[in-house]
Amino acid sequence: MMSGFPSDLEIARAARIRPIPEIAAAAGINADAVELYGRFKAKIDPARLDAPPPAGKVVLVSAMSPTPAGEGKSTTTVGLADSLARAGHKVMIALREPSLGPVLGMKGGATGGGLSQVLPMDEINLHFTGDFHAITSANNALMALVDNHIYQGNALNIDPRRMTFKRVLDMNDRALREVVIGLGGPSQGVPRQDGFDITVASEIMAIFCLASDLADLRGRLGRITFGYSYDRAPVTVADLGVQGALTLLLKEAIKPNLVQTIAGTPALVHGGPFANIAHGCNSLIATQTARRLADIVVTEAGFGADLGAEKFMDIKARTAGLAPSAVVVVATVRALKMQGGMAKDQLTRLDLAALEAGVPNLRRHLRNVEKFGVTPIVAINKFGLDSQEELDWLLAWCAAEGVHAAVADVWGRGGGGDGGDELAALVARVVAGPNSFRHLYPLELSVEDKIRTIVQEIYGADGVDFSVPALKRLADIERNGWSGLPVCMAKTQYSFTDDASRLGAPKGFTIHVRDLLPKTGAGFIVALTGAVMTMPGLPAVPAALRMDVDDAGNPVGLT
Amino acid sequence: MMSGFPSDLEIARAARIRPIPEIAAAAGINADAVELYGRFKAKIDPARLDAPPPAGKVVLVSAMSPTPAGEGKSTTTVGLADSLARAGHKVMIALREPSLGPVLGMKGGATGGGLSQVLPMDEINLHFTGDFHAITSANNALMALVDNHIYQGNALNIDPRRMTFKRVLDMNDRALREVVIGLGGPSQGVPRQDGFDITVASEIMAIFCLASDLADLRGRLGRITFGYSYDRAPVTVADLGVQGALTLLLKEAIKPNLVQTIAGTPALVHGGPFANIAHGCNSLIATQTARRLADIVVTEAGFGADLGAEKFMDIKARTAGLAPSAVVVVATVRALKMQGGMAKDQLTRLDLAALEAGVPNLRRHLRNVEKFGVTPIVAINKFGLDSQEELDWLLAWCAAEGVHAAVADVWGRGGGGDGGDELAALVARVVAGPNSFRHLYPLELSVEDKIRTIVQEIYGADGVDFSVPALKRLADIERNGWSGLPVCMAKTQYSFTDDASRLGAPKGFTIHVRDLLPKTGAGFIVALTGAVMTMPGLPAVPAALRMDVDDAGNPVGLT
Repeated sequence: MMSGFPSDLEIARAARIRPIPEIAAAAGINADAVELYGRFKAKIDPARLDAPPPAGKVVLVSAMSPTPAGEGKSTTTVGLADSLARAGHKVMIALREPSLGPVLGMKGGATGGGLSQVLPMDEINLHFTGDFHAITSANNALMALVDNHIYQGNALNIDPRRMTFKRVLDMNDRALREVVIGLGGPSQGVPRQDGFDITVASEIMAIFCLASDLADLRGRLGRITFGYSYDRAPVTVADLGVQGALTLLLKEAIKPNLVQTIAGTPALVHGGPFANIAHGCNSLIATQTARRLADIVVTEAGFGADLGAEKFMDIKARTAGLAPSAVVVVATVRALKMQGGMAKDQLTRLDLAALEAGVPNLRRHLRNVEKFGVTPIVAINKFGLDSQEELDWLLAWCAAEGVHAAVADVWGRGGGGDGGDELAALVARVVAGPNSFRHLYPLELSVEDKIRTIVQEIYGADGVDFSVPALKRLADIERNGWSGLPVCMAKTQYSFTDDASRLGAPKGFTIHVRDLLPKTGAGFIVALTGAVMTMPGLPAVPAALRMDVDDAGNPVGLT
Repeated sequence: MMSGFPSDLEIARAARIRPIPEIAAAAGINADAVELYGRFKAKIDPARLDAPPPAGKVVLVSAMSPTPAGEGKSTTTVGLADSLARAGHKVMIALREPSLGPVLGMKGGATGGGLSQVLPMDEINLHFTGDFHAITSANNALMALVDNHIYQGNALNIDPRRMTFKRVLDMNDRALREVVIGLGGPSQGVPRQDGFDITVASEIMAIFCLASDLADLRGRLGRITFGYSYDRAPVTVADLGVQGALTLLLKEAIKPNLVQTIAGTPALVHGGPFANIAHGCNSLIATQTARRLADIVVTEAGFGADLGAEKFMDIKARTAGLAPSAVVVVATVRALKMQGGMAKDQLTRLDLAALEAGVPNLRRHLRNVEKFGVTPIVAINKFGLDSQEELDWLLAWCAAEGVHAAVADVWGRGGGGDGGDELAALVARVVAGPNSFRHLYPLELSVEDKIRTIVQEIYGADGVDFSVPALKRLADIERNGWSGLPVCMAKTQYSFTDDASRLGAPKGFTIHVRDLLPKTGAGFIVALTGAVMTMPGLPAVPAALRMDVDDAGNPVGLT
């Protein structure tokens, strides 16, 4: 970001924010479906909503392989929706909720940026309407009930060494990654090795984001396999009989949250699962609620299109029975130059050769989108120091490739300004066209073949190599009757390979699956390709050190 | 409770509940100080409130030494306020928020009972407006930041073996009482012995309930001593520099929550610290906000008058600079017979001899209240199977003692009905009289002498015996300059002694102080007299097993 430009928090606080009942009314939401949370947030009860069944078209915002700073998917999502609204379309945004842990650690916030933000950014970043706290509570209630069951006699014969479910906190807390619990003697529980994940990594978060209603939520919660018995049989939440209590703990949280962009576009911000060991999209209920209210719903999926878009198509869209109408692939000159081999600290330097060397990465993402029968549109997200020469070269390259593309300056000029007009026009044109969406693989394929299909078709790998434990797990999955589930790939977002340092569009590689995690409640099998961090740590100088409240009660230090 | 009588949840759901803006308006709250949380809950921003400074009179509801089931303090608080309102007084309730852990474990709920409840009971019992989740987050953010500080080089020279602050969950989770964290090698943190408390036991909960505003909250958070350095010096949150971030995490939670009783009386339900290692009262901000809006504020303190009332007088009232006008001492025929030596499973049997043997317990509580210069009023909380003969005997005994007393049936008939009319009339008369409130001890006394004063004057002990570690800690407190803090006694609620099995009004005993815990943020020194459980466990058949949501989205199994 340019120095001298105000911070996201400063822009957000300077913005004119409208009372949320006005936003709800303008979005066509009947007042008795609106539950206010303060002045600028509301929960929408889908059961009380008078709107017709979901029919709005879905635009998925994804990205090329990103730099560590990210390429601005949320900013583009917000800005694109604002531009579509400006062009007269009835549009709604569906976005993930930010996690508190990273807010206190590195990032400061996750609600878009510049003039393309959802408001009130401070409240969304801090507790919001309490959804993640409810998910944390449900997750930890389950584990307290499980450990209590073991302590009280263990009628289910649970093997404390074979637990697959952990407690969670919405916190970056390195010291909780590996712990021993139940110490202190017979009155304090049964000792076992354990660990904590961050809340967004909880299977309950993934379930929350795939459930279609309360009944489906209860069913999925009941199907969670939290561990195995001494005779190696899966033990589920339904075996313990607490799916009702967990559903009760989530009954308010499951209603999507309505907020607004700086330009006044309605946004449902709801749920936020990890994009590696889960599918990385906002709640299905939010997406479907938005589709009841708007003609076009702009939403996003975590990481690049190899992960986020593939999972959106093969897991979320399949679960919801929805067919995306367009995929916006966010690209930046910086990221393309990095993919072309330029050093990370040099990316602001003009270098057309690096740009040219980087575009094969983008090309593979675009071709991948087409494999789902969906038309990709490149959103070139303009950063302050991008040169016009590079932007022009990239537009020309897209034209030569026969791909829709537009430069978007939704960060600096806003979608409420003219920063996303061209992009919005392209998107509107594609959305109005025919829809020939298809999944990449049928569920009837074996888990092994589903993984093989993804790594060959999407990543461009020669094949897949399963570790000995993974092969054993494949046999377990078959035996337990879980083969019909879709696959959720956990792979680095920085490369098409499972090696973060291999950039561009590599060929002649194999993907290594080291383990498989059946998430029988969420309804997918996670394939792990390398180490996945499910509990982040804090940096040497956490963002929390800058944070405070001023004398007027306003937040300080959320950037 | 009588069989055939509807459950608290059934009564609550059948009650007519008014939109909370109506309740707020009737209470004289200007609309721009009201932040709605759904239809029936609101936060009140004291900074935007147009009402004058605190001037309402305070009625504290306390109790004799209770049975394990409790004597109905919350029910009496609600019913008394309803009756005062019925008699034309401008009244407001200030109550603690329930903790989620016990709701899932034994109790089902903690919002009064029968016809004397605050509504919506299910939402208050489940997440409510998220205050406890915010406190959990602030507590755990602090500990993540502390362990990260140690991991990143430990510039403050913190001794990981001398930490005095723990992580918390709002959960009954026995297996987390004693844990080892930071395992897994150099990249995962620094191993140390640790444990989790329940959120209501967090010092941040106590701070939350004693802070007068955001600035005072920040100051108290900064003064938390979370551990000691290798050279035995206290290390505080201000040393770490994160009091601003913790304040930011609490800035919305610190606003009191407005709800209503079944009879429509306004109630501020806010905060809820433990009554043993903390002072057991709702937030000071809620009490003071209520005093700005009402002529009479009815509030309660946890446990019997030996603990709850003493701490209210010597900690909370002193911090707030308020002088309670009356103390209602809740007594039941059942509890008196138990104090008289009757077996717990026999308490419904008519037995005037047991009743007579039990009244010395009540007498000592009444005399204790008078030591603070406050007039006690006995509320005989009627239970279904109490005989009229016992009730009459007890009223006659109170008359002979020269003590105000009334039978109250606020559970069965409601304060909105005529169940609390006599009690309300007595309370109104006492409140209208002169106020000669005084603290039991001046802060200038040494910690040792403060404890000695409490145990001799209130418990009736001969003296106090300090363990060797406690004596050592007294010296530390002196050295660190903490001697001017008030004392917070952690003692069993079931006896005036530190032995739960010694009932009645025992004489000739000594109180054993085994350790002292300086809570420098909250601003008191906890004196431990026996084992205190700060992380409850779940029972063999947790209440969670009965809980669910029905097809209409209503809660099931919250009793």
